[in-house]
Amino acid sequence: MAERTIGITLLGCGVVGSGVARILAEQRDLIARRTGLVFDVRHVVVRDPAKVRGAGKLHVHTDANAAINDPQVHVVVELIGGTGAAADLVRKALALGKPVVTANKSLLAAQGRELFALAKKHNSAISFEASCGGGIPIIQALTHGLIANEISALVGIVNGTCNVILTRMTVNGWTYKEALAEAQRLGYAEADPTMDVSGRDTAQKLAILASLAFDATVSESDIHIEGIDTLDPLDIRFAKELGYVIKLLAIAERAQGSAAGGAPISLRVHPTLVHKQDVLADVSGSFNAISVYGHALGHCLFYGRGAGQMPTASAVVSDLIQTALGTAALAFKQLQIFADGTPPANILPFEDLQSRYYLRVLAKDQPGVMARVAAVLGKYEVSISAILQHESAENNHVPIVITTHLAKEGALQRAIREINSLPVIQPPAACLRIIDQPKESSAIQ
Amino acid sequence: MAERTIGITLLGCGVVGSGVARILAEQRDLIARRTGLVFDVRHVVVRDPAKVRGAGKLHVHTDANAAINDPQVHVVVELIGGTGAAADLVRKALALGKPVVTANKSLLAAQGRELFALAKKHNSAISFEASCGGGIPIIQALTHGLIANEISALVGIVNGTCNVILTRMTVNGWTYKEALAEAQRLGYAEADPTMDVSGRDTAQKLAILASLAFDATVSESDIHIEGIDTLDPLDIRFAKELGYVIKLLAIAERAQGSAAGGAPISLRVHPTLVHKQDVLADVSGSFNAISVYGHALGHCLFYGRGAGQMPTASAVVSDLIQTALGTAALAFKQLQIFADGTPPANILPFEDLQSRYYLRVLAKDQPGVMARVAAVLGKYEVSISAILQHESAENNHVPIVITTHLAKEGALQRAIREINSLPVIQPPAACLRIIDQPKESSAIQ
Repeated sequence: MAERTIGITLLGCGVVGSGVARILAEQRDLIARRTGLVFDVRHVVVRDPAKVRGAGKLHVHTDANAAINDPQVHVVVELIGGTGAAADLVRKALALGKPVVTANKSLLAAQGRELFALAKKHNSAISFEASCGGGIPIIQALTHGLIANEISALVGIVNGTCNVILTRMTVNGWTYKEALAEAQRLGYAEADPTMDVSGRDTAQKLAILASLAFDATVSESDIHIEGIDTLDPLDIRFAKELGYVIKLLAIAERAQGSAAGGAPISLRVHPTLVHKQDVLADVSGSFNAISVYGHALGHCLFYGRGAGQMPTASAVVSDLIQTALGTAALAFKQLQIFADGTPPANILPFEDLQSRYYLRVLAKDQPGVMARVAAVLGKYEVSISAILQHESAENNHVPIVITTHLAKEGALQRAIREINSLPVIQPPAACLRIIDQPKESSAIQ
Repeated sequence: MAERTIGITLLGCGVVGSGVARILAEQRDLIARRTGLVFDVRHVVVRDPAKVRGAGKLHVHTDANAAINDPQVHVVVELIGGTGAAADLVRKALALGKPVVTANKSLLAAQGRELFALAKKHNSAISFEASCGGGIPIIQALTHGLIANEISALVGIVNGTCNVILTRMTVNGWTYKEALAEAQRLGYAEADPTMDVSGRDTAQKLAILASLAFDATVSESDIHIEGIDTLDPLDIRFAKELGYVIKLLAIAERAQGSAAGGAPISLRVHPTLVHKQDVLADVSGSFNAISVYGHALGHCLFYGRGAGQMPTASAVVSDLIQTALGTAALAFKQLQIFADGTPPANILPFEDLQSRYYLRVLAKDQPGVMARVAAVLGKYEVSISAILQHESAENNHVPIVITTHLAKEGALQRAIREINSLPVIQPPAACLRIIDQPKESSAIQ
């Protein structure tokens, strides 16, 4: 079969962009053999061409408009990131009817609805496999493989930086600060790690994934977010004793375990106790994994490198190939699961969440303390599942760990406020949520 | 958007076929909302219509030709299985230019090359997501998400029956016979379990997956196959002591860990010692999982229900939707990774395999035995990595377990023959292979 040349423009040539250029150059023969396509990188647009190393024969310049307008350019790859210049350039390409491939989760989480609508209007398309889970083909799975499934839950580890830090804290017993410092030293965390450790990056990815899984528009502001930066190694240790591993999870699930279309969706990002038997507990270091629970498929999981130059570039090139083959546009045009064509999600108010909880209080080492804590929990109808208390005291205070049965978030928070005000307690109490794997029986066999 | 009606014929209505009918009926609204498609099951063709229960309004009959010829039928779903009638009917549909969706791994492993060529000739297509890994979208991952990766290895647990049996043997310490009997009682194993426990089913799936991963035609006969039916619980126990779990693995890897296009491919199915830290070690019961190692993506893994009515039906309906959207045909037409367009695989002769090994011999409980066994191994340049010998003897024979460094299969087999002939040994020695996860560093980061 004759080879077909596809002209492309790369907007941005940082870590991922140079990875894309590298795959297109190094795997030119493999890609041509498998797909009949040859990609011609006609423009690489950056702010400072002098900073692009190893550009070889690439045409590196600063004129984004010319690069997008070039009639020989069939696809525009946006790897600038953020919601500023990237947004304008993506709009420009779409308005010209040119399909866009992007890894920009911030942009899609913030302006997905408008951009998808613009793409539809101009008979163009947006592909964004690289925006979530790095090289893991999770977008493809949700839009194709699982398309016939009513999805009851999506639970993922989608931020490699946080997972590297938590893995170190768990395995080595380090503090958050120690683990962060090492992650920065090794290049897993940025100098300003806020986007990652605050949970915001995870929430932006969850907004994209949940929108697809539940055919409903979810934006970052719909999601309750807690980061890992206040996590105490003490709680990681206690969790381990109880048989759990603490992971920063992105969670989207139908309330009450109901798979019915009408039930509201709980959307949240927070450090979570995951049972050590859950596959997610074994996802270490910079790896990501996403569990999806479908009514027909049951539990499935997608695991791989969630970040890094080449894994993310692998997803970008996959999108480029599907765009060039024409399959991306055909699916984008017909599938009604993108944010422009779906209603706003029916979100469960966070205080209505039903969850199991892990509480840790520092209590004075004297008789009757446990009874008083238990009395407060009872008052708010929070039922205790297990208690862990060791003999050793610290500054005359002893940590008491309590896990609960299912309780309501609102009631639990009111109980904690009251516990924190008890004279026998040294506030604040630590409070983490526990996730139990949906029962196997919930999948039709 | 207006709904589009797609007429389909179901050939076969057993476990999976009735699952497909169930999803299409129960998820009619969800599918229409997400895809704009409504599927009209115009014919259900079976040998004995009286046996089809709960057919409702379905038109169940025995006339396959009429069902395929019906001009209102746009897609033919083949769920008969085997290489007899199924092959003829698939050919008939393809020759009429009608795309086929099938779960038939035997048919594709045996006649894939001819069928793909026939489909191309008549501008039709074959989709087969359900043929491997049940509902796990692994075919999609190999043909789309990982398409830009040079793949160095694919390692999978792709037979749920064997994994159920091995899980029971490992967790409960049961014998193969006990575990098989329970699997049969619970419906996980058939009355005649040969296809599953011999490893043949796994090999057929490997043929399909390896063909896609390595752009080369692989057939079942290219694959070295050992089943689980001769596995001794003793070896499962010793493996556990050494930190390994025994799984029936389908393995396709470039020899010498080389990712270069030219190196031969090692293809094999056998019980394998998997390190307990490997994600595959945690895949229990009827779950399947496939690890793929790509040059850019690194290690990724796809996990889920590898069999069963609804998971498999989920994959069939996904294929149906992609066929109706037109994306399946567009990809099928252009991608040159299907068996009709690829050269025969360059297969590594099995005796040239380089692997680590687990050996267990029953030796007379007397001095000098270990030295004699070690001498034979040394003679064939098999280097010992670890030795495990307990004090307790059994019938005056004591089991000695040896793990080796990398050795050549041919040399190892010659060593075993010589060891079996030693007067101090009670033959036969047990021999299993050990798989080590390709090093993280082999993935470009």
